[in-house]
Amino acid sequence: MESKAITKIGVLTSGGDAPGMNAAIRAVVRCAFYYNLEVYGIYRGYEGMIQNDIRQLNSSDIAYVLERGGTFLKSARSAEFRTPEGRKKAYENLQQHGINGLVVIGGDGSLTGAHLFYKEFGIPAIGLPGTIDNDLSGTDNTIGFDTACNTAIEAIDKIRDTATSHDRLFFVEVMGRDSGFIAINAGIGSAAAATLIPEKKMPVEALIDRLNTRAKAKKQANVVIVAEGGKSGGALEISKKVKKYLPNYDIKVTILGHLQRGGSPTSYDRVLASKLGVSAVEGLMQGKCDVMAGVINNKVVYTPIKRAIVDDKEVDEEDFRVAKILST
Amino acid sequence: MESKAITKIGVLTSGGDAPGMNAAIRAVVRCAFYYNLEVYGIYRGYEGMIQNDIRQLNSSDIAYVLERGGTFLKSARSAEFRTPEGRKKAYENLQQHGINGLVVIGGDGSLTGAHLFYKEFGIPAIGLPGTIDNDLSGTDNTIGFDTACNTAIEAIDKIRDTATSHDRLFFVEVMGRDSGFIAINAGIGSAAAATLIPEKKMPVEALIDRLNTRAKAKKQANVVIVAEGGKSGGALEISKKVKKYLPNYDIKVTILGHLQRGGSPTSYDRVLASKLGVSAVEGLMQGKCDVMAGVINNKVVYTPIKRAIVDDKEVDEEDFRVAKILST
Amino acid sequence: MESKAITKIGVLTSGGDAPGMNAAIRAVVRCAFYYNLEVYGIYRGYEGMIQNDIRQLNSSDIAYVLERGGTFLKSARSAEFRTPEGRKKAYENLQQHGINGLVVIGGDGSLTGAHLFYKEFGIPAIGLPGTIDNDLSGTDNTIGFDTACNTAIEAIDKIRDTATSHDRLFFVEVMGRDSGFIAINAGIGSAAAATLIPEKKMPVEALIDRLNTRAKAKKQANVVIVAEGGKSGGALEISKKVKKYLPNYDIKVTILGHLQRGGSPTSYDRVLASKLGVSAVEGLMQGKCDVMAGVINNKVVYTPIKRAIVDDKEVDEEDFRVAKILST
Amino acid sequence: MESKAITKIGVLTSGGDAPGMNAAIRAVVRCAFYYNLEVYGIYRGYEGMIQNDIRQLNSSDIAYVLERGGTFLKSARSAEFRTPEGRKKAYENLQQHGINGLVVIGGDGSLTGAHLFYKEFGIPAIGLPGTIDNDLSGTDNTIGFDTACNTAIEAIDKIRDTATSHDRLFFVEVMGRDSGFIAINAGIGSAAAATLIPEKKMPVEALIDRLNTRAKAKKQANVVIVAEGGKSGGALEISKKVKKYLPNYDIKVTILGHLQRGGSPTSYDRVLASKLGVSAVEGLMQGKCDVMAGVINNKVVYTPIKRAIVDDKEVDEEDFRVAKILST
Repeated sequence: MESKAITKIGVLTSGGDAPGMNAAIRAVVRCAFYYNLEVYGIYRGYEGMIQNDIRQLNSSDIAYVLERGGTFLKSARSAEFRTPEGRKKAYENLQQHGINGLVVIGGDGSLTGAHLFYKEFGIPAIGLPGTIDNDLSGTDNTIGFDTACNTAIEAIDKIRDTATSHDRLFFVEVMGRDSGFIAINAGIGSAAAATLIPEKKMPVEALIDRLNTRAKAKKQANVVIVAEGGKSGGALEISKKVKKYLPNYDIKVTILGHLQRGGSPTSYDRVLASKLGVSAVEGLMQGKCDVMAGVINNKVVYTPIKRAIVDDKEVDEEDFRVAKILST
Repeated sequence: MESKAITKIGVLTSGGDAPGMNAAIRAVVRCAFYYNLEVYGIYRGYEGMIQNDIRQLNSSDIAYVLERGGTFLKSARSAEFRTPEGRKKAYENLQQHGINGLVVIGGDGSLTGAHLFYKEFGIPAIGLPGTIDNDLSGTDNTIGFDTACNTAIEAIDKIRDTATSHDRLFFVEVMGRDSGFIAINAGIGSAAAATLIPEKKMPVEALIDRLNTRAKAKKQANVVIVAEGGKSGGALEISKKVKKYLPNYDIKVTILGHLQRGGSPTSYDRVLASKLGVSAVEGLMQGKCDVMAGVINNKVVYTPIKRAIVDDKEVDEEDFRVAKILST
Repeated sequence: MESKAITKIGVLTSGGDAPGMNAAIRAVVRCAFYYNLEVYGIYRGYEGMIQNDIRQLNSSDIAYVLERGGTFLKSARSAEFRTPEGRKKAYENLQQHGINGLVVIGGDGSLTGAHLFYKEFGIPAIGLPGTIDNDLSGTDNTIGFDTACNTAIEAIDKIRDTATSHDRLFFVEVMGRDSGFIAINAGIGSAAAATLIPEKKMPVEALIDRLNTRAKAKKQANVVIVAEGGKSGGALEISKKVKKYLPNYDIKVTILGHLQRGGSPTSYDRVLASKLGVSAVEGLMQGKCDVMAGVINNKVVYTPIKRAIVDDKEVDEEDFRVAKILST
Repeated sequence: MESKAITKIGVLTSGGDAPGMNAAIRAVVRCAFYYNLEVYGIYRGYEGMIQNDIRQLNSSDIAYVLERGGTFLKSARSAEFRTPEGRKKAYENLQQHGINGLVVIGGDGSLTGAHLFYKEFGIPAIGLPGTIDNDLSGTDNTIGFDTACNTAIEAIDKIRDTATSHDRLFFVEVMGRDSGFIAINAGIGSAAAATLIPEKKMPVEALIDRLNTRAKAKKQANVVIVAEGGKSGGALEISKKVKKYLPNYDIKVTILGHLQRGGSPTSYDRVLASKLGVSAVEGLMQGKCDVMAGVINNKVVYTPIKRAIVDDKEVDEEDFRVAKILST
């Protein structure tokens, strides 16, 4: 497919929102203006593309959004986009606006949509990794992951205060469906007694052993981090199992939940999102498409979307080992 | 009972921990040193008093604790202290150390213990209101309440980011057994669509009406604050009821839980705790006992413990009215 | 002057901005809508009133401003408003829009303007205390003060980390022209070695004594809080004087400056601003004018503007005493 | 030099303190215990090594330090260590304690010391990059840099609130002697109008042009980030030059100063410091010495100290370009 000059860029956010999405949108818009391109905001992800919820963005739309959590373009799931008819409708709406380049910010599902759309209609599309789960290849970290880790750690710091005051055991469940990135970072960063992640099964007996070892060292205040999608079950489930072994131990559960999705992005996420927003626009101008822009070792790298979403990024074995050494 | 010169003060924290307890302990110790008194830390509340877990405190014990959440003296429940034998044992331990004045930092249960102990053994005791629930009379605010409100609001700000991005309805449960103080402040402070508190029953139909009115004004992103002990049930229970009326609405629940108990105390709580710690020591020196020190209108006030714990402090009707006006 | 029914309210912010001003504006607008009144935003304070920078506000103007620092109506100084001609022009602009009630949010200068304007043209005006300085009577605290104290304390906590690591003496200058409220709270709240406020002259020799006493107790890491307008000079000036007495001591100065004016308002300031915004609108509807709405002991109180600005609110002698006891 | 089995590790922090140093010390101690080694804390850096301020560390020394800013081992400059006599004394003290492995946490000066000490006395030493300046090669980021960036950005967010409310120009000076890493990140992350860094000279005329362009786009509220050691002078100096060109513009200066050094470390810095602490101990056990442990692309890498400190790590040209695109 020959690359035509990009003149009008459409930008959307899709899937679960992540802190830094606004910073990415802002960078797309600012960079487009820098090169005298027009930008159209596609609201509510693919759903808005189908329903023609598309508006041209100007400078005032992106004033003071860099530092805000969430996405001002909003996000939504779209069943209709999964149908050929839905995608056709979406394509016609883009055509109507003259949009000839697309920036899709989101997780694997969102990027899959971009890939499909490009395949079917040839609209050049670049994906940006926007998800707190950090489960995309082709980038050291995804937009939102660092903020989510910090939110988790700040919450766990508070929980440790009360765990320590009462010599309690707390199970804290953090987000991360099928991936333990937030959990392992939170575990190392908050001196957790143990960290349970989907990638590694830890039998309840091993956890009991760990707690008993700590009890002998007079460490009665314990925080155990549990990734939501863990093979060993969620925090509630595990706490019940542990309760059977340690019936006299004062055990509590906190599920951090959606507060991990929001909040003003950290420095890291703001800079990452800003760089990637610029890379998306410049990538489109250079004729790149069907790729995801990421940052590896502080450099921008473009990876074919298919590879970014298919590869299985896993928690580093080494990080797991470090977490274990530091928790004993 | 004649007041003897206080020479050795015992200080303890009891009940649920609250941010600012450490600041209060520090103020007690520093003020005692200022007047050349000795201070003994009684660890794990009344339980430590019975088990003689009592150690003299010096300057280094209170270095860098002012800004820490929790209580370095730890807290615990004590079934034994509820028995006359337990209290006798506790009294003998205090005697052994020569402790002739007591500062008890905690909620209503903890202050009741101090009152009882004074009645039975004549040990002068002053209580300080340390609880995030704000449910004690004789003080504008209890130590820890302001921090808990700020923790709740910061978490809800984050949740609003994601609620807005997805046009969702979130039920956020905040702490406050039997009292809606945190809830009403969080409700006003976070632009909640509604606030459900124990003091006021709100039928689910009224809540549905409120949400429908907002829906007509295109306000689809909603946060509803629920106090844990509310007459209308907890957040989970209410969310299920609402789901029946609004089956297509994307509804989520977050229970903030124990993170509201921890964290570095706010400016307000640090200053309040510091003032009250000084007032406790000076009050004992002036022969006051069986009272709780509080701050009303920026002035220290001593209230008989019996009155401080019996009175029913309720959320101001006026605050509830303001919350309603601002949420429509 | 007979009170006419209020139908159109003008709202402005003036003077130095303070966190919570946006929350107050929002509450004014929401409350006005609740009573079916119109609201006009007067941009850039009295300057915008003269230049007719006045626009009707609607619901979307106040979406997501509650939690933002600063003021979206902006603020500015106006030399022209000090002239009768300027005020006449301003009055005519209000007339043109049919504005028959005014809410002025700001410090003493701003409230003085409201008072004058009412005297000259009979426009009912209610003032709200919006200043981080806390130097207005008729209210326990002004909007923005609590946030400024927390910002100061969080910054000082960080500075203490490095002071402790290097056993240094830090002079930290906080805001507070002519009033030591932020300083005294920051001093108590951050375990300062000393607090220098405008209301109390502390000779440099006394400060040296304090530092020497602490040095003997091996307390080499010291933070001294200095209010910017202090009689003893600013932080830089004092540090130079102290340097002469303690030439080998590693002394640093940090001037916190304008970061104390910004930031998301605390729970306290959000609730205070919200209550007062409602009180302003309801006060106008009840025929009140030339008064400032404040909160004393959790209740709304209206005080004649002349009294609110003339009275000299000073740091409590008692607070100063507490600060001293806790710093030795 | 043949490597002997390490049995007793000495650990010290030196130079300017950085958030995460405590986390690194903790990891060293925990990892040493994991392998049944002894650890000695050398207080106040090389100065304490000379003055034999060395104490064995146990588990309770490192409880609850992970999340604290600063360094509990303290830091100091040592003129004596620059003399052969001083280093000899230091060496004898290590000998006396039987310390046969050293972990030095600090910046280039501190690592140079370690290198020299190893050359002269053959004590195996591993350096960890602990400095907010990020000016060491052999690691993507130094311990403390990410926290400093976040501290800067949070402060600038607050300053932007007041800049926007008053349409002012703020010059904000951030730390970074000879290196613009914090500045460039803060510039991108806070939507700065311009960023002045030591690596790039920007003539004042170019800055005026930029501000005038923004003024035409009605962007009157501007924040300009200045790195302290910039070739164009500090923030105060530059503000004066700009004032001459724009005499009617309301210009303010804030020097963030030492608050950038403190504070609880971010998730990133906690994890980085934890990993590196483990790597230091394991590296020593494997016979590595005279190297600095760093993390590149999420993997631990050991770099000869001479190369880590000599290389000139500079702000990426690409980051500077992104900052420029996003600020116009």
